[in-house]
Amino acid sequence: MDHIIKAIHKYQSFAISSHRNPDGDSIGSCIALGLALKKLGKSVTYIMDDIPQKFEFLDEVKNFKVDASEHFDVVVCLDCSNIAHLHNSQDLSNGDLIINIDHHISNTNYGGLNYIDSVASATGEIIYELICKLSIPIDKDMAVALYVAVVTDTGNFKYSNVTYKTHAIVSELYKISDIYWKINTIIFDQNSYEGMKIIGKSLENLYLTHENRISVIALSLEDLKEYDNVDLEGIINYARDIKGVEVAVFAKEVEPNLFRVSFRANGDYDVSTLATIYGGGGHSKAAGCTIRGNSLKDIMNDITHNIAKDLQ
Amino acid sequence: MDHIIKAIHKYQSFAISSHRNPDGDSIGSCIALGLALKKLGKSVTYIMDDIPQKFEFLDEVKNFKVDASEHFDVVVCLDCSNIAHLHNSQDLSNGDLIINIDHHISNTNYGGLNYIDSVASATGEIIYELICKLSIPIDKDMAVALYVAVVTDTGNFKYSNVTYKTHAIVSELYKISDIYWKINTIIFDQNSYEGMKIIGKSLENLYLTHENRISVIALSLEDLKEYDNVDLEGIINYARDIKGVEVAVFAKEVEPNLFRVSFRANGDYDVSTLATIYGGGGHSKAAGCTIRGNSLKDIMNDITHNIAKDLQ
Repeated sequence: MDHIIKAIHKYQSFAISSHRNPDGDSIGSCIALGLALKKLGKSVTYIMDDIPQKFEFLDEVKNFKVDASEHFDVVVCLDCSNIAHLHNSQDLSNGDLIINIDHHISNTNYGGLNYIDSVASATGEIIYELICKLSIPIDKDMAVALYVAVVTDTGNFKYSNVTYKTHAIVSELYKISDIYWKINTIIFDQNSYEGMKIIGKSLENLYLTHENRISVIALSLEDLKEYDNVDLEGIINYARDIKGVEVAVFAKEVEPNLFRVSFRANGDYDVSTLATIYGGGGHSKAAGCTIRGNSLKDIMNDITHNIAKDLQ
Repeated sequence: MDHIIKAIHKYQSFAISSHRNPDGDSIGSCIALGLALKKLGKSVTYIMDDIPQKFEFLDEVKNFKVDASEHFDVVVCLDCSNIAHLHNSQDLSNGDLIINIDHHISNTNYGGLNYIDSVASATGEIIYELICKLSIPIDKDMAVALYVAVVTDTGNFKYSNVTYKTHAIVSELYKISDIYWKINTIIFDQNSYEGMKIIGKSLENLYLTHENRISVIALSLEDLKEYDNVDLEGIINYARDIKGVEVAVFAKEVEPNLFRVSFRANGDYDVSTLATIYGGGGHSKAAGCTIRGNSLKDIMNDITHNIAKDLQ
């Protein structure tokens, strides 16, 4: 961390990027750090694309760029465990130094300087500490960005990754602003009509199997045809949050006979091992893979059979 | 608060009670204080009934009594703004002293000693501070009870009543135990399969009207026939939490041609006035009524027409 602080003071131009399909933690962390660096008089370029619409209320999003060809002293990669996941790994070659800050235990230490804290619930927690160590006062915009980072990566303070430090940081953020309940509503409770309808369709398709220990939601292209741009990200939670369910499976057909499959575990079952069978990966509680096949039903049967083999 | 601490040290036998239909805050606050008083060697009797099943994981619930005829030195009333709401106001006459601790601004100060902090997000916040001032170490059971109190009354840290103090207290609780994510799941995410299916059916029936400013979910006896004992309480939130919706309506047929209707407001619209038109009542943001009629469609049209008249 001290080396990173020295590098920040030493260099002038910074690009900040994160993984593709950025989530609240990557967007919030990038913005908080970007605003902090600007307070130090640094030049900051955000390189990030495909921002979910619900995060567009963050003012700084309008400064996000899809690409950058200029040279930077430093490229800072946040919340990105592997170079292959970076929004645009080409950008790395534009920097003299890569700083890699992340909370994923699987981080490959691809930076010139690496700071990985796998106990942090979100990269936002690390950025909070970095900003404090840089002695930069946290203003309202930075506080909201950090809140977004932490609240999204902890599932609104629900997940087992939450620690005393998470709440201690958020307590400090509440001393700076009082609009978090509005932010929370924007992130978690402002659904679209189409989003609600596809949840309804998903729950219609929901079924339990193997003594109700496995839940499945599968959506075919036919099911999805009226819902082109609808965010399906949280739907697997409806399958996971059923009493007695140990593993939840969510599958969507992304093109004919190609299925994107997600897994969630409630108990001790490790879904990352399961995902590996199908060439995917992830964490023990959340993983995914892509499967090609003719029949959604056969694929689901194969998956649930593989899960059931390992359920105690 | 100092008078309350003196009274706790002075007296020996305590009854602890709260309002009827106790929620997480009343149950958690009573248990946390009860366990603390027991550590001081006091005799503690909990007087509380109708505990929602999801809170039965709290060990101390098995010591709850519906009623008590014996004499107590002190009756402590927690989270209860008015004597008329108390589980059994008869019990008050069994105590020499009534201590009234609450966070509702409407509290009528009915106690011999009263401590009302309307800035506290939950009575549990006040109990946390009281236990600290009594210098009683908080053990895991007390910590979990206090977490239950705070997490339920803040809607899982979502509501506008959350302050820096709420998160600071929860941060301290995380230093004592690490099972809160499991508790959170028990309280918020253990749905039944039937509960999920009826949400699916509800979302299938969901529609928007009057420039998408009003959302409606209506369930007929036919829709409900497979879901006899399913809790429908939270379903109206799916109608409320749609971007742009100002008023949400949820109707269920409770017997042929008799409809129980609930209203929720997102914005400034006062649904209690609307409910009054149909002989019902409630608060400005949440109200309800019972309507008799032949056609669910006609009733919904009449209601949405009445709402639309008053939308700005």
